[in-house]
Amino acid sequence: MDNFAAPLEELIDSFASLPSIGRKSAQRLAFHMLSMDDASAQKFIDSVTNARSKIHRCPVCCNLTDKDICSICSSPSRNKSTICVVENPKDVIAIEKTHEYNGVYHVLHGAISPLNDIGVEDICAKELILRLQDDSVKEIIMATNTTVEGEATAVYLSHLLKPIGVKVTRLAYGVPVGADLEYADEVTLVRAIEGRQEL
Amino acid sequence: MDNFAAPLEELIDSFASLPSIGRKSAQRLAFHMLSMDDASAQKFIDSVTNARSKIHRCPVCCNLTDKDICSICSSPSRNKSTICVVENPKDVIAIEKTHEYNGVYHVLHGAISPLNDIGVEDICAKELILRLQDDSVKEIIMATNTTVEGEATAVYLSHLLKPIGVKVTRLAYGVPVGADLEYADEVTLVRAIEGRQEL
Repeated sequence: MDNFAAPLEELIDSFASLPSIGRKSAQRLAFHMLSMDDASAQKFIDSVTNARSKIHRCPVCCNLTDKDICSICSSPSRNKSTICVVENPKDVIAIEKTHEYNGVYHVLHGAISPLNDIGVEDICAKELILRLQDDSVKEIIMATNTTVEGEATAVYLSHLLKPIGVKVTRLAYGVPVGADLEYADEVTLVRAIEGRQEL
Repeated sequence: MDNFAAPLEELIDSFASLPSIGRKSAQRLAFHMLSMDDASAQKFIDSVTNARSKIHRCPVCCNLTDKDICSICSSPSRNKSTICVVENPKDVIAIEKTHEYNGVYHVLHGAISPLNDIGVEDICAKELILRLQDDSVKEIIMATNTTVEGEATAVYLSHLLKPIGVKVTRLAYGVPVGADLEYADEVTLVRAIEGRQEL
């Protein structure tokens, strides 16, 4: 008997198929799952089925929501003339936590990455272009990650969007607040010097 | 909107409640769960319900099994006169993988740990003592972990079992095979010297 009983092995395989869960973690999770009381296990299963059935993409901004139109797009207090373009729903939460941005968002659900076979048609880019058909949008803020893929996506989309006549901006590059200059990498420092501002 | 939609937050909470899954990992797992196709998601849920309904403790050795009596206890080729006592089902698999042990097992499902409020009544110790009521068992091999809790459990159980008249042994302590002596800790080296054997 080199393996656990079949249903337990299947449960371990299920967990091991999730991202960043190795075999040992999957075992630990499976044993935990077996030791749970019935109510907690049912709650776990319900949360999976519930989220999968209720969560969908907002037809306007492609962010994940359980409403017909997400709470940001449907809010009358948000400024619909500025769209902040991000890669993932997590980035929306990150920017919302600043409490400084009052515009709306567009979630691409990824970034262009030819090496991984992800082209512009695999991200929610055409939905963004559709939003520009009325003239109400004045500015697009590219807030994709500052990785190679995020940069490429920002540059590619700006080339698509500028001919439409909308202002396209990019988040400022620079030294993070609270950082020691000696630990900043060269590229970041160069960008920070280039983008210096008068005091 | 500082948070994700409610069903998504609940799914993240569900994952975050699992052992050794932090908030960021839980988010990644939740997003993965949403992006799965229906068949994979159903397979995941089925594996949880399946394992929970079918897996139970073997009434003889307390190992986890989906049969009435586990495959080791019910095997006619196993030597029922030797019982190897381990803390967890994973330890059974580890010893089985050696293909050297032909006796049966007893899984305690834990170790005595007064600091964590785990006493002898919280582990499957009485089931072990019940197995000694007929005279067929000749030897008990204590293969609990060599941690403080595992040692305490082995010593405590041996005190309970010896009066019954059964031979109680403990796994040998020593230097692991393939190890550099310079990296062995003092306690292990002392045990290895004490347990030295003639070549």
